[in-house]
Amino acid sequence: MNASIADIYREADALLEQNITVEGWVRTHRSGKSVGFIELTDGSCQKGLQLVYKPGTEAAPADNHLLTGTAVRASGLLVSTPQAKQPVELQVSALEVVGPVDETYPLQKKRHSFEYLRSLAHLRPRTNTFQAVFRLRSLLSFAVHRYFHERGFVQVHTPILTASDAEGAGEMFQVTNLDLEALAAEPPQALDYTQDFFGRPANLAVSGQLNAEAFAHAFKNVYSFGPTFRAEDSNTARHAAEFWMIEPECAFCDLDGLIALAEDFIRQMIIAVQTEAADELAFFNDRIDEGLIDRLTAVQTAGFSRMTYDEAIAILEKSGHPFSYPVAWGLDLQTEHERYLTDEVVGGPLFVTDYPEAIKAFYMRRNADDKTVAAVDLLVPGIGEIIGGSQREERLDLLQARLQANGMSAADYRWYSDLRRFGGTPHAGFGVGFERLLMYLSGMKNIRDVIPFPRVPKQIDF
Amino acid sequence: MNASIADIYREADALLEQNITVEGWVRTHRSGKSVGFIELTDGSCQKGLQLVYKPGTEAAPADNHLLTGTAVRASGLLVSTPQAKQPVELQVSALEVVGPVDETYPLQKKRHSFEYLRSLAHLRPRTNTFQAVFRLRSLLSFAVHRYFHERGFVQVHTPILTASDAEGAGEMFQVTNLDLEALAAEPPQALDYTQDFFGRPANLAVSGQLNAEAFAHAFKNVYSFGPTFRAEDSNTARHAAEFWMIEPECAFCDLDGLIALAEDFIRQMIIAVQTEAADELAFFNDRIDEGLIDRLTAVQTAGFSRMTYDEAIAILEKSGHPFSYPVAWGLDLQTEHERYLTDEVVGGPLFVTDYPEAIKAFYMRRNADDKTVAAVDLLVPGIGEIIGGSQREERLDLLQARLQANGMSAADYRWYSDLRRFGGTPHAGFGVGFERLLMYLSGMKNIRDVIPFPRVPKQIDF
Repeated sequence: MNASIADIYREADALLEQNITVEGWVRTHRSGKSVGFIELTDGSCQKGLQLVYKPGTEAAPADNHLLTGTAVRASGLLVSTPQAKQPVELQVSALEVVGPVDETYPLQKKRHSFEYLRSLAHLRPRTNTFQAVFRLRSLLSFAVHRYFHERGFVQVHTPILTASDAEGAGEMFQVTNLDLEALAAEPPQALDYTQDFFGRPANLAVSGQLNAEAFAHAFKNVYSFGPTFRAEDSNTARHAAEFWMIEPECAFCDLDGLIALAEDFIRQMIIAVQTEAADELAFFNDRIDEGLIDRLTAVQTAGFSRMTYDEAIAILEKSGHPFSYPVAWGLDLQTEHERYLTDEVVGGPLFVTDYPEAIKAFYMRRNADDKTVAAVDLLVPGIGEIIGGSQREERLDLLQARLQANGMSAADYRWYSDLRRFGGTPHAGFGVGFERLLMYLSGMKNIRDVIPFPRVPKQIDF
Repeated sequence: MNASIADIYREADALLEQNITVEGWVRTHRSGKSVGFIELTDGSCQKGLQLVYKPGTEAAPADNHLLTGTAVRASGLLVSTPQAKQPVELQVSALEVVGPVDETYPLQKKRHSFEYLRSLAHLRPRTNTFQAVFRLRSLLSFAVHRYFHERGFVQVHTPILTASDAEGAGEMFQVTNLDLEALAAEPPQALDYTQDFFGRPANLAVSGQLNAEAFAHAFKNVYSFGPTFRAEDSNTARHAAEFWMIEPECAFCDLDGLIALAEDFIRQMIIAVQTEAADELAFFNDRIDEGLIDRLTAVQTAGFSRMTYDEAIAILEKSGHPFSYPVAWGLDLQTEHERYLTDEVVGGPLFVTDYPEAIKAFYMRRNADDKTVAAVDLLVPGIGEIIGGSQREERLDLLQARLQANGMSAADYRWYSDLRRFGGTPHAGFGVGFERLLMYLSGMKNIRDVIPFPRVPKQIDF
């Protein structure tokens, strides 16, 4: 019977002494006079399966060129190997080379730098590290959906194409089907958007939040989980032009309710990875980030701390720590400040709440002090901000004043204001960058290494 | 305790005679001298909850203006009502208006046309029909992920931004951060893409398939599920500029294996909807599409038929049926032909295989007859094509000949060809339009009515 390697390890007892067919790729191969060993991977789990064959028999491959990367199909008896590293092995009775490789195959056994492997984004998922990364990515994606599904959240597919502007969240890409070459070649003229696909300028969304708010007022608890885009020319290890965001939005919910959700979400994601990706986590802990497992366990079992922005600024000012960026009420916290608070002050995850209105988005709910808003960031040790959210301004008059103060068009936000006009509720939501979460859970240090085919300035290969 | 209406119906026995708080929106309200009735919805299920209160008491709202759409919070005893339509009701002891509505609220009790409701995309999810549509959409999205997750498929988030051209799948949107107004205003010149974000033209992907093929050669079974884009100026009930696609891709898999997967997938999606969205399905069957439940049951329990394109053409030619479009070997099947085959010839779902090479994409595997390719479409009664897929050309020489014959650049597809050079396998995959599947499962007739905020030519509101 056909089985994946994950099946074989999961159901080893039932499959022992059975004739099994496996398909996959050669990870390593060595052969002596009397016996040959193949470590086979098929992407179903982090572990490989050991295949044992007798050279010179029918069971051995015709040309015996089983270079790393060769696609093979093998059948044989699954036997127990209590003395060996692996609990079982396959005693091969038939072996077929399905797809050979030659000496030009760029992934030989030696270790390659992550930077080099980025130039091989189509092949790097075959390496141990990227097997772990992208299997974890898939598991985590499913865990996110399951988390919200089990709690009765309705997934809303918010639009990617949007006519609204950035809302201060960052530079946007423009989307068009105008012929740009023709446009450049023509005499000077005013741009005629009536000829464009949507009859007006269109952009790629930087967030699904505003649309999700509309759905929260029909389904109470909703979330979106899709790609978002920033046209920012920043070549850092934490920024990509295309990344996925998770954005829950809850009606009848205030900042305290939101913080409880965020804490539970992070804790459950850690548990999901600990439970369902133990081998991958062990790999990351061994090869990528030594303290990873301990750090995640600490966060999962720790209390999450909480302080206001006012308190955070006071602590930073009194710290005497030589920060590179200035600390003062009214300035945003930089990563160095965030890490000082989590790593040195509270020694664990920290919610910072109630930021100055001037440094936050127009839709955040104004507090009674008339200078701060009901915003919250979750900071985690070693990383900094991982979640940003807020209670939304549900009071129509205050929202409209904010729109005006920010020079935004009341007409463009008419529909958004309607949510306050008709059956509005106190409501709140947050956003998590999926890749940031994945980096946090894997210890991978560069966002380019957790995205299958990353898009960054000047790079759009594959 | 707080409970959702779905919780209340699911756990009614445990919650009876308890004090419960519910939050939601007034669907209907009528009050007499001695008693008032509110039907409350909270988006958690298709059914509403009946609230009963005594006018003139503390439990009644102060101004008693409980117009449709009002957001309320109500607490009271949950009691059994064996004689009534609903098994339970809430005897209100406290009722609070959280967010009022006024007479300008556009969703009054009377029925509105779907066309009118499209102009209220931010409010329509509050109506019965769109509650059902978007809850079904969410359930189906989760069922898709669960289906592949349970079968060991790795989800790959294929890129949305791409430098490759359409591969014949349709018109693409261009993505840029050049200043188009400045470009139009300048003297005639050649377009300088080195100034654009990626240093070269970039588009929105029409499919994730080619990238998924790379991951299938590392994880064997993978799928992508994300937004795709077509800049086609077609104003039909079945086309949108932005829609979601499900694309599984399997290594070590031929056309027969792919067909088995497609059949199982469709069957399991029907079962998921029948099991987990029974109330929504009943609603659609009552209000939208009378034969829906019978049709889905028939497909779920039916054998799926299979014929080649050659056989299909022969049958259509012999049928004597007066088709609007011509039937001849070498021409593509039109929807009328597909429906004739499913509805009149086989009376059920039908796989048509082995289409002429000339009408299919370059990556499909050439058959031994040298004129057809190993393509497959799944046609279903009343709809036509719902799935399109193929075995992919894994033979490097044949793939390169096809690229050349199609005038495509070997350099651009170097990485794609690498998948054939290094450990390649026979492999296959299909694509399902998520919205088409949703229309099929709900009976909704216009794609604009199954997308939260649809994008079609000249329309990008909200």
